[in-house]
Formats: sequence, structure tokens, C-alpha cells
Amino acid sequence: MGVSGCGKSTIGKLLAEELEIPFFDGDDFHPKVNIIKMSSGQPLTDADRQGWLETLNELAKTQLTKSSCVIVCSALKEAYRHTLSLGIEAATKWIFLNGSFNQIYNRVNKRSNHFMPSDLLQSQFDILEKPKDSIEIDISLTPKDIIKTLKENLMDKSEIGLFGLGVMGKSLCRNLARNGFKISMFNRHVAGVEENVAKDFKAQYSDLSKAEAFDDISAFVNSLQTPRKIMLMVNAGKTIDHVIEDLLPHLSGNDILIDGGNSNYVKTKERCDYLKSKGIHFIGAGVSGGEEGALKGPSIMPSGDAEAYKYIQPFLEKIAAKDQNNLPCCTYVGPEGSGHFIKMVHNGVEYVEMQLLAEVAIILKTLGQNPDAIANTLERWKATVNSYLLEITTVIFRKKEGDDWLVNKILDKAGNKGTGNWTTIASAELGVPSTLISSALFSRYISFYKDERIQLSKGFDKGDPSELRLTTTELLEAYQFARIINHYQGFKLIAEASDKFSWNLNLSEIARIWTNGCIIRSTLMTDLVEVFKSTTNILTNTDVIKVVQQTKKATKKVVSACVTNDLVSPALSEALQFFNGITTPYASANIIQAQRDYFGAHTYQRLDDDSGKRFHTNWI
Amino acid sequence: MGVSGCGKSTIGKLLAEELEIPFFDGDDFHPKVNIIKMSSGQPLTDADRQGWLETLNELAKTQLTKSSCVIVCSALKEAYRHTLSLGIEAATKWIFLNGSFNQIYNRVNKRSNHFMPSDLLQSQFDILEKPKDSIEIDISLTPKDIIKTLKENLMDKSEIGLFGLGVMGKSLCRNLARNGFKISMFNRHVAGVEENVAKDFKAQYSDLSKAEAFDDISAFVNSLQTPRKIMLMVNAGKTIDHVIEDLLPHLSGNDILIDGGNSNYVKTKERCDYLKSKGIHFIGAGVSGGEEGALKGPSIMPSGDAEAYKYIQPFLEKIAAKDQNNLPCCTYVGPEGSGHFIKMVHNGVEYVEMQLLAEVAIILKTLGQNPDAIANTLERWKATVNSYLLEITTVIFRKKEGDDWLVNKILDKAGNKGTGNWTTIASAELGVPSTLISSALFSRYISFYKDERIQLSKGFDKGDPSELRLTTTELLEAYQFARIINHYQGFKLIAEASDKFSWNLNLSEIARIWTNGCIIRSTLMTDLVEVFKSTTNILTNTDVIKVVQQTKKATKKVVSACVTNDLVSPALSEALQFFNGITTPYASANIIQAQRDYFGAHTYQRLDDDSGKRFHTNWI
Repeated sequence: MGVSGCGKSTIGKLLAEELEIPFFDGDDFHPKVNIIKMSSGQPLTDADRQGWLETLNELAKTQLTKSSCVIVCSALKEAYRHTLSLGIEAATKWIFLNGSFNQIYNRVNKRSNHFMPSDLLQSQFDILEKPKDSIEIDISLTPKDIIKTLKENLMDKSEIGLFGLGVMGKSLCRNLARNGFKISMFNRHVAGVEENVAKDFKAQYSDLSKAEAFDDISAFVNSLQTPRKIMLMVNAGKTIDHVIEDLLPHLSGNDILIDGGNSNYVKTKERCDYLKSKGIHFIGAGVSGGEEGALKGPSIMPSGDAEAYKYIQPFLEKIAAKDQNNLPCCTYVGPEGSGHFIKMVHNGVEYVEMQLLAEVAIILKTLGQNPDAIANTLERWKATVNSYLLEITTVIFRKKEGDDWLVNKILDKAGNKGTGNWTTIASAELGVPSTLISSALFSRYISFYKDERIQLSKGFDKGDPSELRLTTTELLEAYQFARIINHYQGFKLIAEASDKFSWNLNLSEIARIWTNGCIIRSTLMTDLVEVFKSTTNILTNTDVIKVVQQTKKATKKVVSACVTNDLVSPALSEALQFFNGITTPYASANIIQAQRDYFGAHTYQRLDDDSGKRFHTNWI
Repeated sequence: MGVSGCGKSTIGKLLAEELEIPFFDGDDFHPKVNIIKMSSGQPLTDADRQGWLETLNELAKTQLTKSSCVIVCSALKEAYRHTLSLGIEAATKWIFLNGSFNQIYNRVNKRSNHFMPSDLLQSQFDILEKPKDSIEIDISLTPKDIIKTLKENLMDKSEIGLFGLGVMGKSLCRNLARNGFKISMFNRHVAGVEENVAKDFKAQYSDLSKAEAFDDISAFVNSLQTPRKIMLMVNAGKTIDHVIEDLLPHLSGNDILIDGGNSNYVKTKERCDYLKSKGIHFIGAGVSGGEEGALKGPSIMPSGDAEAYKYIQPFLEKIAAKDQNNLPCCTYVGPEGSGHFIKMVHNGVEYVEMQLLAEVAIILKTLGQNPDAIANTLERWKATVNSYLLEITTVIFRKKEGDDWLVNKILDKAGNKGTGNWTTIASAELGVPSTLISSALFSRYISFYKDERIQLSKGFDKGDPSELRLTTTELLEAYQFARIINHYQGFKLIAEASDKFSWNLNLSEIARIWTNGCIIRSTLMTDLVEVFKSTTNILTNTDVIKVVQQTKKATKKVVSACVTNDLVSPALSEALQFFNGITTPYASANIIQAQRDYFGAHTYQRLDDDSGKRFHTNWI
């Protein structure tokens, strides 16, 4: 692409020859009416061009089914290029032959056999929108040098790099490769521990035949087209900073680093700022879906520099899961670390979803159901409350080992990684009551005190669980109720952070990219995409209100029965407590304010004074 | 003090003359048997000295009842000085006349009328233990210069400085002054906002007639005896760092800064390290008791450099509250920020104690009790569960404004400062399930959403509170139960932090300094001093187990009734949930581990494998 006279045809032909692929001159595909118009000295309108651009798009698509081709076309506007590459965005490479007006004007005036008068050149410069993601070539270079540069960029260099081949990194590599991207893969060399990881991985999967494998950072970076796009899939925390420092000496301006790990959102902002000062773009991208999601299509939550995002958009949107409308479960979330923030909240919501299923299962067990029966119950619930986690829990309860169920043999100490406690920490810091997330987190912590639990269990009597009287329908309703509160709280935390940090996040769009690919995808999440189009508070939506009203009675019965029968149900219980709290117009905090004023002279406000004025009383 | 021949008598006489107070030479008070022994060239034993030292101590005490005096005495050992100043530690100033052996040997040999042979000098140097907190004088100075220096230190200089005259700073100033300490007080000058704060404060209270008031940092620092002791009572966070930077240019080596604010324990450690690099000691001291406690005797929780603590110990222990054995509610807590850590936990426990009283009061209200009746009920509870917070809550409920009770007019939005959310954050970070503290914190957060609560209350039906059936005895038992869990969790968090940071904290001693002066003092806390002498886990103590067993049934009834009747009782409810969780030998976390292994290949351990080996299953 480029304005008339930039040398498109010459370079295009040479390139096609070099690459041994067909060459097409876009001008040859103009309808006659356009050629006449141009020859008469009139510039084409966008309407004139549309059919022609679509023809070229069809041409490219057809050629791609065979191998590839070179097409030359001025393609001056972003809109033209959009039409030209429609449906084949990731496979399209733009080469922009760039020169000054004077340079090109002189060239054009030397020609005799071109049908376009050179005085139209100015109109072309006027409408030229320089492409953002292209191989830009200075036309003052010799054709030989231009071809050399192009070949290097097109044939030998990878489009994107993946740094760190853990479980998630490996799956993303295969996902990218399967989607036709040329990738470079890097894993460090640690003698005796991590040796030839990238090479062995490449050898293992035919998907990766065209991928390049490295354990040398310099070679890895040099294998990438510029601006380089490198996705970091390493441990969050200090590791990511070390990796950035290792990479920095090898990078050049406008290269883009993407942190696909579960980094802390505050750190992501700091890294954005730090790398900006070095001329490097940084995108924090939450990635959810586990090993399988990363391979088949995860939910991706990128944030940071919006301009830089455009360069990586084709890759991320291609490998992402698709929602029910076939749109990618990947969207530009917002500035700074907002992507990692919502990933953190995603994981907090996930903790609660898992905890609720665990509580429900223990209640079903206490009601006399064996794992198969529990699986059957959950199976039936799919019609009402389906979710990925419900599905896998059903599978888990069916899994047998010998004559017994495997789940019965697993140690009841639950692990956790950073994001779970970060969500609780962020809630505490931001002043948002994410009570279910902290409840789920602390339940895992309690589980970890296995020895103490066994010791203390001997000191206290427990009730007789056989007296528990509940129907599975009541339990289903309590589970429904608690899940609504969980989603209320999760999105509340996001909305409050968005306000506080001026992120301007779109809750509906966030719910949408969580409808597939990620761990908390569910029919409820799909419903919330619509709910959030009209409110940021799901408890004001009439459909949600209806479900809450319908399920609350059963929830009360379930929680009360658990309390009476010594059954552990902190999340179900807290869902109810929170709901009562957030729907209580006049709460007990006046007493706390009085206490604070009494001992600390912290002052209080009054119900009969709207001015915000603060009062102090000498209480004695 | 100082070895024979250092010039004690000469300097002592001159000083007494200058200060216009009586002079006593300690040697004049030796019993005859000692004088004979020394004259015969035999050194005295400690037993020989004991009676003599006690005589001098009596002399000092008697003189102090009049005004003051100068006593000269070799006082070479710490133990001698201990006896000499017993009971008058804070009023005693040690002046150490320091010289080298050769310097003094030459002096002694010039004398003719002294009864002590100069060859005993070496034995004095052998036992000399240099005092840590003294005015040290180089004997090579002229007597005139020595007297000048001493006068400056003794007459014009303050013993301790108080920086920041907010509510707590002011109360501590008056407390120090009332206890006979000479203090300097500083408050910044902010034109039009904070002007002459220190001077006006001094003018306001006769307590402070001897205190010096400043708004100039340099003058304030120079008004203090060295090593300077400055207690900072400013806002935690960045303010404290600014104040430290402002003070640093004026300080000299071994000066001691005491941060008496609610600073974050992590920051306190950082500040310790930073100031150490500058030769300055830093003590983080939690102070609890509110305005009144700070004035009449707070609970003080100092930590940091143990050597530096000795210099400030006389001040802090003197102004602290006293426990039932008349010991100060102040102890050296441990290294680094451990003092601020336990203050933070103290405040977390305080949040829960307040929340529980608020929940109890709302239940009593729902049972039909008006504020006076609630106060009467709480009054009766004092026999079983007395505490400072229970006492003030009783007073609060009685307080009337016109015909109505004041508590009814207070806005139900509860404020919070740093320490409440820090406790939740620390719990999340350290992996300790402090569920009640987060519940109390989040209850305050929920209260803050007043507008949303009013809005949402309109969308949902509530049960009829008149159907609540509970006795006040049942409620008292639930309150007792929840308080035990609250204290279990608070001390658990301290014990885990102590382990993790190798602080070696003494739980019994911490409970002891919380039995008076602080906000969470209670009869339960007094009981825990004994409990922690034999265990770090109160739920293993037979008396505690007995109370838990006795109160659990009523607790279940109260929580269940609240659930059934739509009453908000998150902390009471969570106390029960947590208790059930921590006493459950086989919990539901196996299900969570299976889920984590399913979607994230996080692996799990098995009940039938003690080796800690981790397993992964292909679940489908």
C-alpha cells in the first residue's frame, strides 16, 4: 500500500517473485467506470471504491485457501484496509511504502504510461491514514534492500512471542499456532531442571511445526517482527520484574509486552508507567480458562495502552473463546491494571462459586446422598443454574477409583494462590464489602488447619446430622440465592474500583467476555450481560428481584437448618446476612458511631441533619 | 557517679551550689566497718555495700519530698544504681564523670588526705558498668564548663518531647506532666489553621505549667536532654515519614523516636531500618485507651530496638494504666513492628466487640426493649461479661436528648480508620482466618451504603420482627460464645505472625497489658492472662471449653432465630460458622481441591498418603 507512484507495483512484483507466490495489481480490478473517472482527473469517492475493495478482499480470501499472494493497492484509509482484510485480519500483512510528497511527485512526473495524472497526488496525501500495524518501508532504499527487509520481516520473523512455557504458556502457544500465527517460544535454561523446554515442547506437537523454540533471550527477541509482541506467561510477582529487566536491553521502541499472568493490578500500573518511560508498551491481560481454556479458547481481559492494544488485538481476539454471538471473549477492558483487576475479581467470584458447591455437596452428603447421587442432583440442577463449575463438579463426583469415589480420598486442605487473597485485600482497601469472597478465602484457610481441626473436634460435642430435614429443591434455591449475591458483590467491587480509578469500565461487556472460556462462565453470567445494559446494580433488576424473592424463604430454611444441625455453611449463611444488611434502611451502625465518639471523640452525623455536619457528645 | 578520684565531690558541690539544692557525699554515709575495710586496702563486697546504698536511697527519697539534692556516690554497677534509684527512677538523673585510668590514677596519687589507697583504682575500673541513660561528662573539661553543661541538661532541658498535639497527643502530654516529667510539646504552625496550638494548650491546663511549648522544630529538639526521646503523635502514613524527615537534621546519634500512632507494622519495620542507618533508634508503640485512656493511663505496646526501649521504659511504664497487680499495662512487646501489629489486632478485636454489642442491641430492640431497657439488660450482663465497651454502651443507651434517646438520632453510617482494614489485610496475607474481624469491617462498609440500603429496602419484603422469640439469657450466652471466638481469632493472628516473623511474642503478657487502659479490657481478657500461661490456643483450655459447651445451644438458637426473622447478625452468625469450621475434622475442601485440579492442574494430596506427595487426575 501507499500513494500512487510510491513504487507499489515494482516492489510488489519483486516480492512475489522472491516469495514464489502470485502477484496482483489492485488497479487491474477496478471497474471500467472508475478508470474513466480517474483518467479524466476526478478523484474517486468512497462509494466508487467499495465494490472494488470487496473484489480485492474476495481475491485475497481465495488465494489464502491455496497459499498466499501479494496484492498492491493504495489502501490509503483505515476503512479501506478494514474492507480489504475483512475476515482475514490475522493473515493479512500490510506493507506501507512511505515517501514524501516531493519524492513521489518527481517520480510520477517521470512516468508516461500511467493513467493517473500526477496532480491527483495531493488528494491522495490528503486522505492518507498511515497504518498502525504495518511493515513501514522507506522508498528511498534500493529495491534490493527493500526486498531484503521485507523478506526478513515476512518469512523469517515470527508474529508474536510467548515467554514462559508453563501449563498456561504452552496451551496459549498451541492455541496461537493452531490459529495460523507464526510464533516464537521461549523458556529459560536452568541446568538439570529446565533444559530444552521450548525445543522439546515444539517436538511434541505437530501444531508447532512452524513455531520457533528458544532458550536464548537475544535470539528469541530477534526472531520477532517489529514492533515486537511478547506475551509473558511467567509467575506473577518478582519474576515478572526480573523477566522485564532481562528483556529490556533487547527491545526497541514501541515493542509491546503483554503480561498474561495473574499480576497484582497495582503492580501492573507501576509496570505500565515504568516501561512507558523506556518507550515500551505494556499490556496487562488477565487470562482465564485454565489449561483447557488456554488451549481451546480462554477469556482474555487486556488493559493498558489502548493504542498498543490494537497491535495485539488480532492475536488475542483470534485465540479467545467466542460468546453465543460468536464474538470473541476478549475486549479492551480499560486503562492501567484494570484487566488484572477484573481477573482478580473473577477469581474471587470463582472462589465463592467453588465454596458454595462444596457447601451444597456437604449438605447433600449429610442428607444421605453418596457421590453418585450428589452428581445426579447437580446434573438435574443444570436446567436451572448451569455453569462450568457445576458441570465439572458433577464429573468430579462421578469419578471412581476402585470401588470408592476418588473425591473421598482427597485431603481436605485447600490451596490458594495470590488472586484470592488480593480480592479480599482490595475490598478492604477500597471500602467495598465483598463478604462472600473473604468468607470463601477464609474457609480455605480454615481447611489448612487440619491438625488443629482434628485436635479441637475431640473437645466439643456435635449435633446429630441425621436430623437435617431439607429438600434438594430448597437447597437449589439457596444455591441460586447465594450465587446472585456473589455476582452482585463481584460486580460491585468492579464498579467501585472503576469509579475510584476513573477506569470507565463496561460491566455488560465484562460479563460478556466471561460468558465463555473462563472458569465462572454460567447461564447466570449470560443473563447478566443484558442486566448490566440498564443498571450497575443487579439487585435493582426486576428479573433478579423476582428470583431473590422466590428463593429467599428456602435460603433461610437451609441456613437455619445448617445452624441447628452444626453443619458448616459460611458462604450460604453470609449470602443471607449480607442481603439482609444491604437491604436494611436503618442499621445498627449508629451504636458503633456512638461508641467511637464516646472513647475516641470520632464524632458522628445525625439523622435529622443532612448537612454532613459532625457532632460530638460528652457522654458522661 | 564515677570511680574514686574522678572529681565527684568537687563537681557535686559546685553543682549543688549552682542549683541551690543540698549536697551529700555518699561516702559520708558509709558505716564505720566499711571505712575501716577500705582504709586497710580491702575492696568492699556487694554485701558490704547493700545497706549503705539503701541508706542513700532513703536519703534521696526524703530530699525529693522537699525539692531535690545532689548526691555523689561511685555507683559503679547497674545493680547499685538500681538500689539507689528504687521507686524514684523517673526523678533520678545520673551524671557520669568519665575519665581514663591514667588520668584518674595521676589525680589520686596527688592527693594526701583521701582514705582510699590509689592502688584500689584498678578494681573500680574492673567492676565499672557504664550507665546507659546518663549525662556523661568528660573530666578533662574545666569545672566551669562541666557545670555549664550540666545545668543546661538538668535545668533547662526537658526529659521527653511530644510531637503532635491532637486528641491523643494532648492527653499524653498531660499524663506525662502529671507524673512529674519535664516535657516539651510541639505542634506545627499552619497560618490561620493551627496557630500557637502548643502555647494555648499549655496555658489551658495547670498540669502543664512546667512544660515547654513550641511550634519551631529546631527549638523543640534543642530543648530536650540527650539522648533525646521524642514521641510522635501524628497521623499514620505519609505524615509520619514527613515528620521524620523534618526532625532528622536536628537529631544526633542515639536519639530515640517513638511512633505512638496507629502505624502499619510493615512500615514500622521499614522506618526502624531506615533510622538505624542514620544512627537513630525507632520504637513503634501502639497506644490504646482513647482520649481518656491516654490521659489517665493507656495500654502501651512498644516494640523495636530492645536497648533503646530501656531509655523510654521509665516514661511509658509510669504513664501506663496499671493491671490488677499494679503492674504497668506496658511491656516491651518484641522486635520490629510487633507493637503496632498487636495494636492493629487489638483494634480488629475491638471492631468485633463493638459489632457484637450493636447486633445484640438490635435484637433486644426487636424484642421490644427501648434504649433504657437495653441499658438495663446490659447492666445486668456485667456480672457475667463485663468489659469497658459493655460499660460505655450501657451509658450510651441511657443518654437522652430531650424526650428521646440520643442514640436514636445518630446516623447509621460507621466510620473506620486504617487499623480495621489492615487487620483484615494482614489476615489475608498471613493465611489466618480472622473471619469476625472482616465481618465487623464489612458491616461498617455496608452501613456506609446508606442510600443504596434505602433504595434496595423498597424492592424486597421483610419478615415480621415481632415473631422473634428469644430470652435475654439466650442472647447473653450467644454474646459470650461469640466473644470467645473473637478472642480466639485475635490471638491466633498474633501467634501466627509471631511464628512467621520470629517475634517470640508472649500471649499472656499481651493479654495482661490489655487488662486495663485499653478499649478491649474486660473480665474475659483478665481470664486469658492465665489461660495463655499454659496454651496458645484458648479452645484447648478446659474452662473455655466449658463455657463454649454451655453457650453453644443458645447461640444456635439466637442465630437461627435471626435468620428466620430477617435480622442482621453477621458476626454472631459467623462466630458459630467459624467454630463449626475449626472443629470439623473432615471438611469440604477436598471438593475444592478436586475442582482446582480439574481446571488448573493444581494437584492435590491424599488422605491415605502422609508423605505430602501431590497427585493429578485426568478427570474426563
